Amino acid sequence: MEPRPTVVPPPIQLRIADDIRMQIERGELTPGDSLPTLAELAERWSCSVGSARAAIALLKAQGLISSGRGKAPVVRVPPRKVIRSSERHQVEKDLAARPEAERAVVGEAETNLNMQISEQEFRSRYDQVEARAALADLFRIEPTDLVLRRRYDSTDRATGLLLSSSVSYMPVALVSPNPALLDEANEPWPGGTQHQLSTVGVEIMTIIDEVTARMPTTAEAQLWGLPDGVPLILCRRISLDANEKVVEVSDAEYPADRTELRFVTPLKPWPKRRSNGGKTSGRQGGRP
Amino acid sequence: MEPRPTVVPPPIQLRIADDIRMQIERGELTPGDSLPTLAELAERWSCSVGSARAAIALLKAQGLISSGRGKAPVVRVPPRKVIRSSERHQVEKDLAARPEAERAVVGEAETNLNMQISEQEFRSRYDQVEARAALADLFRIEPTDLVLRRRYDSTDRATGLLLSSSVSYMPVALVSPNPALLDEANEPWPGGTQHQLSTVGVEIMTIIDEVTARMPTTAEAQLWGLPDGVPLILCRRISLDANEKVVEVSDAEYPADRTELRFVTPLKPWPKRRSNGGKTSGRQGGRP
Repeated sequence: MEPRPTVVPPPIQLRIADDIRMQIERGELTPGDSLPTLAELAERWSCSVGSARAAIALLKAQGLISSGRGKAPVVRVPPRKVIRSSERHQVEKDLAARPEAERAVVGEAETNLNMQISEQEFRSRYDQVEARAALADLFRIEPTDLVLRRRYDSTDRATGLLLSSSVSYMPVALVSPNPALLDEANEPWPGGTQHQLSTVGVEIMTIIDEVTARMPTTAEAQLWGLPDGVPLILCRRISLDANEKVVEVSDAEYPADRTELRFVTPLKPWPKRRSNGGKTSGRQGGRP
Repeated sequence: MEPRPTVVPPPIQLRIADDIRMQIERGELTPGDSLPTLAELAERWSCSVGSARAAIALLKAQGLISSGRGKAPVVRVPPRKVIRSSERHQVEKDLAARPEAERAVVGEAETNLNMQISEQEFRSRYDQVEARAALADLFRIEPTDLVLRRRYDSTDRATGLLLSSSVSYMPVALVSPNPALLDEANEPWPGGTQHQLSTVGVEIMTIIDEVTARMPTTAEAQLWGLPDGVPLILCRRISLDANEKVVEVSDAEYPADRTELRFVTPLKPWPKRRSNGGKTSGRQGGRP
């Protein structure tokens, strides 16, 4: 139980920002509420208006408050979170084995966004590029070998803002036995990538999702309509066949303020059942 | 193939920042390289030193460059990423079924951090608090019912900075049949939470990880030693028994610049094998 290492007391703008943040966390300030004016903050904390302004800028950068030009800052209204569950991987696999009539009626977009398809504009762009070092390493091909790059995005017709964005890679040598897979005009493909790969004899047996996050670039923040202080979640999906060969890699980006990724891990049962005595105690007790 | 909606050309500091970002992405500037001085940037882009400074500030906020007070900015050296895989859930479950001698020698810390245990300082703090609405909803108990809250963190002995931080919750009524589970003096518990729960007759059959990200607060950035522009990844682990009853909830935070979460999803095979003809083409071809 060592105390934390001693830290220098934070400057006034950090104390103001943390005080407001705690008011938001305790629910004393709720989404949409206006914050005190700079003059009010300066008086309450006996500090300069400049320090109050710095506190407000910090809360904006942390994604807690928003303000347009000339508008008073308000507590941000968080957008509804879209949940993307790893359980969709099996659902998509099962769908890929169904007849085309069934495959055609279910699109990924319907299950991903809180929005009608007619409100969205989809784009698919295919090209063939050199794998380069990192992808060549994953696919175990040469860096100069070609990969089919498929860029997908959807935008909100009303605002022009991005709703989804991903880039998929597959070795051209793997998919070229079915030339239809090389042509973006065949998008949207009923049954998606898992069905596409089935047409060249590939069955995906394992999917690995690698997740991290970073701040958006200026251009990305503009395209997604991201408020200040909202990170992008990056998810790389790596699909493997029964021999653990990588057959597809897909990089998707999700705005953190409107996305939750959910991963479900079923566990194998313990080898033998334990008796549920309820009388056990201590570290030795009740081993299975 | 609609063009993007027209956007106003970005101001000069955004163009400078995006140019430098692309140089980093293309590998023309590599980690540790110094950036041009403000005067050099101003001359090259025919802009004011103030605009050049704004571009540098933006790159700092995006986590791409770092600079101490009075030091020239350099391209950030990204720390080595620690990979946390969902496969550890089954490993931990298997371990919980082993004899204590075996459980005692494997600690989670060894598998999580690129650091010797002797270099880290661990803390475990237990207390009992009211569940409140959100947790009560998950555990299906009353908001005033008590939960055992266990706060874990580890710090780097050399720097005092946080290395890991998580908070776990379990209903007191669930764990109290084994009073040893209520006492933080029994930490580190050999075999961890899955073994602890086994002593009260609970076997975890499913783990759900919910992942999102947000910017750190000022205090969090200080405790973790986070550079500007680095988000925290938030991961809530929800553990369920065979009846899908929630038995534990754990909230962990990970600095995005040094963490990658990896989730492995095995898929069930398609019901019947397809022949791998290699002659298939078009959307109808090669259904499994």
